[in-house]
Amino acid sequence: MNPKQYIENHKERFLSELLEWLKIPSVSTESSHTADMKRAAEYLCKQLTSLGLERVSVLPTKGHPVVFAQKIINPSLPTVLIYGHYDVQPTDSSDGRTWTSPPFEPVVRDGKIYARGATDDKGQVYIHVKAIETLLNTTGLTCNVKFLIEGEEEIGSPHLGEFVEQHRNLLQCDVILISDTSILDNDIPSMTVSLRGLSYVEVEVSSANKDLHSGVYGGAVANPINVLCQMIASLHDANRRITIPGFYDNVIQLSEEERKLRQVPFDVEEYKKMLGIPDVWGEKGYTVPELTSIRPTLDVNGIWGGFTGEGSKTVLPSKAFAKISMRLVPNQTCDEITALFTKYFLQIAPPSVRVKVTSRHGGDPYMTNTNSMFFKAAEKAYERTFGKKPLYEGSGGSIPIIPMLKKHLGVDAVLMGFGLDSDDAHSPDEHFGLFNYYIGIQTVVAFYEELPNFF
Amino acid sequence: MNPKQYIENHKERFLSELLEWLKIPSVSTESSHTADMKRAAEYLCKQLTSLGLERVSVLPTKGHPVVFAQKIINPSLPTVLIYGHYDVQPTDSSDGRTWTSPPFEPVVRDGKIYARGATDDKGQVYIHVKAIETLLNTTGLTCNVKFLIEGEEEIGSPHLGEFVEQHRNLLQCDVILISDTSILDNDIPSMTVSLRGLSYVEVEVSSANKDLHSGVYGGAVANPINVLCQMIASLHDANRRITIPGFYDNVIQLSEEERKLRQVPFDVEEYKKMLGIPDVWGEKGYTVPELTSIRPTLDVNGIWGGFTGEGSKTVLPSKAFAKISMRLVPNQTCDEITALFTKYFLQIAPPSVRVKVTSRHGGDPYMTNTNSMFFKAAEKAYERTFGKKPLYEGSGGSIPIIPMLKKHLGVDAVLMGFGLDSDDAHSPDEHFGLFNYYIGIQTVVAFYEELPNFF
Repeated sequence: MNPKQYIENHKERFLSELLEWLKIPSVSTESSHTADMKRAAEYLCKQLTSLGLERVSVLPTKGHPVVFAQKIINPSLPTVLIYGHYDVQPTDSSDGRTWTSPPFEPVVRDGKIYARGATDDKGQVYIHVKAIETLLNTTGLTCNVKFLIEGEEEIGSPHLGEFVEQHRNLLQCDVILISDTSILDNDIPSMTVSLRGLSYVEVEVSSANKDLHSGVYGGAVANPINVLCQMIASLHDANRRITIPGFYDNVIQLSEEERKLRQVPFDVEEYKKMLGIPDVWGEKGYTVPELTSIRPTLDVNGIWGGFTGEGSKTVLPSKAFAKISMRLVPNQTCDEITALFTKYFLQIAPPSVRVKVTSRHGGDPYMTNTNSMFFKAAEKAYERTFGKKPLYEGSGGSIPIIPMLKKHLGVDAVLMGFGLDSDDAHSPDEHFGLFNYYIGIQTVVAFYEELPNFF
Repeated sequence: MNPKQYIENHKERFLSELLEWLKIPSVSTESSHTADMKRAAEYLCKQLTSLGLERVSVLPTKGHPVVFAQKIINPSLPTVLIYGHYDVQPTDSSDGRTWTSPPFEPVVRDGKIYARGATDDKGQVYIHVKAIETLLNTTGLTCNVKFLIEGEEEIGSPHLGEFVEQHRNLLQCDVILISDTSILDNDIPSMTVSLRGLSYVEVEVSSANKDLHSGVYGGAVANPINVLCQMIASLHDANRRITIPGFYDNVIQLSEEERKLRQVPFDVEEYKKMLGIPDVWGEKGYTVPELTSIRPTLDVNGIWGGFTGEGSKTVLPSKAFAKISMRLVPNQTCDEITALFTKYFLQIAPPSVRVKVTSRHGGDPYMTNTNSMFFKAAEKAYERTFGKKPLYEGSGGSIPIIPMLKKHLGVDAVLMGFGLDSDDAHSPDEHFGLFNYYIGIQTVVAFYEELPNFF
């Protein structure tokens, strides 16, 4: 049987297995879900074992465990390490939107799977599981494969670095293959060739040793919320450039020619309409696709302080807090930018408050080697299944694990994403198209089929 | 028996009755406490009835009810209307401090009553109840008295205006007497001669129609938190003056001479130490006592938006919110300032966001007539019980009810406060000194004794 026929014949089961996995609420950031994390890892192991993979195991880390499996068909052939994650984002939202159906009761509606983790990243991980199954049951593998599926991607992979160092031999490979990104549209295939890095910090501004009456003390005691706002505001200038000294020093400035090469179809009116925004925003002089890929950002992800309940309370609060993240581009590094931010933020604090900055997590930006045989095989695979060459795209998101894996394992990564930016990855009603799931499996199968042509 | 002896003889009971009242969690801003509000009003009625007062009743409003009582000894004598409130602030705090003992299980520790409402305002209201009891059981009243004790002061008295209008005859009086302020210290008696007004608003800044992934969209979509911070920051200039056009137009600028007259003893180092602040803050050119009395302010009382939970979430939120209040001074008015704020805040909003401003509540600032017979009798009363003349003090707080009552009833107010600024009125561990409670009763008794001397 050819692989295409095999996929067609097992469509229903491929879907139902994924839905079962999506039922497990593997929210890595919430300690109440620790047992669910283990269940999610074990479910994946069971599936990998049933394919006949070797050394299938749930390996402990200092945090949530890692799932490993491999199939070595010939040690002299290249080895592909499939990286992904089985943990998911929390399900709450701050925008008042709620889930149409519960996040951990997956359903298929209008040709899409609705569930937390559907696209990010369980659905995209499962594409690889089913592609390998397909090959093993039809034409066979063309190289060795390993699976490294972690449980802490959504919290910044705090323990994976140590794990990879300790298991360097086990994880030895020639390329890392990842499906955790998007294509531009279902009829515009694209491959992510660069990723932004991330520096995520939490800041605290404190004034008096307790909450005060805003009438009795207001006007003479610094209000930590007002001060925090002032400090955050001063991090951008009128052209929306970030004001932290040295912030742009290592940013690669693309030439006009390079910028042209990366142009992708984009309709600003459609974009505004889809997001319901009165206007776009951003650093002067760049297009929206550029702002979200080749330019760094500074966004407040959360802010809180004082009285936030029902009604009104005239309090002059003691503290105010914010979670701030910066998206980084080549050749900024997380360590460098975190240090620059911290230094500047402490420096701009007025003398009437105390300021604390805590680094939460981060990762360096990344650029793919588009000349490797693995990238070329992947590019060809998209062309075969989508019927057109994929565009090169810079992604705004971060996969800090990639530069980290590159450092420890010494190999490049190829990003074969099949989601859409409109999948609501970190929002309520996260979904993943059935079209995307199945074409993903076909494309990954095609990748292995094409690979020997580029050896 | 003379009044002093009577107070001494009934000290224990005067205290235990107040403690009973403090046990009732009459938090007006939380709808879960509606039944407690009624219980607190009824408890007070029971006490007033037992004194032999007339027309004691719990009168409905569109919100929490009002307690009324009166004793008319001679219609040709002046009538004092005692105003106060039986509602209290919520008990939560944003500064991490907690209550040493539960807020609604009052205890006496180190000579102080610890409970929510101890000083603001149940304890100070009960001073009047016990002063009237003392007089009725000893030398008798020297004028007519009425009680008007409301249940919505902490939420801005939204229904009292309508109530007063409807009960104008019932409430007819010659002066309003209020104990809801502080003295400078237990050996520095003072009388509050001015109060700041208040304009309390809630603002909402919104961008996209849902929470977005900060990697995918960050840099091209306005972040409502960053924008809100920018807008809040721009409300003060470098000299910490408020930038809203016209904001200071009606502020009475005191002459150097007037400023000297209002000087009160103040130790800035002591103040910094007490509050645990590295430095004071505020509009350039004014002392701390001035900043908190004769100058207006703009403070953010609460801010929230995005992800504020444990861990980190890279969300570009859809909305951000803040509660902002402005303290006003003569001759600013709440309506004028609320309108100026709203206009300016909408005007400074960048085109990439939507902004909403909602007025929550407020009140006008107030200045006492220090030449009235009521003020003079009160001044003399302090001098008798404290052994020295009270200083005149401008208070930073607001009692919006005063200008409102003045408008409807056409009479002035005299503020006889007995608390201390350090009583933690709106914070955990609110307390009220036993010294202050008892000297308050004595001073109010002395007020009625002195009053005929100024007829």
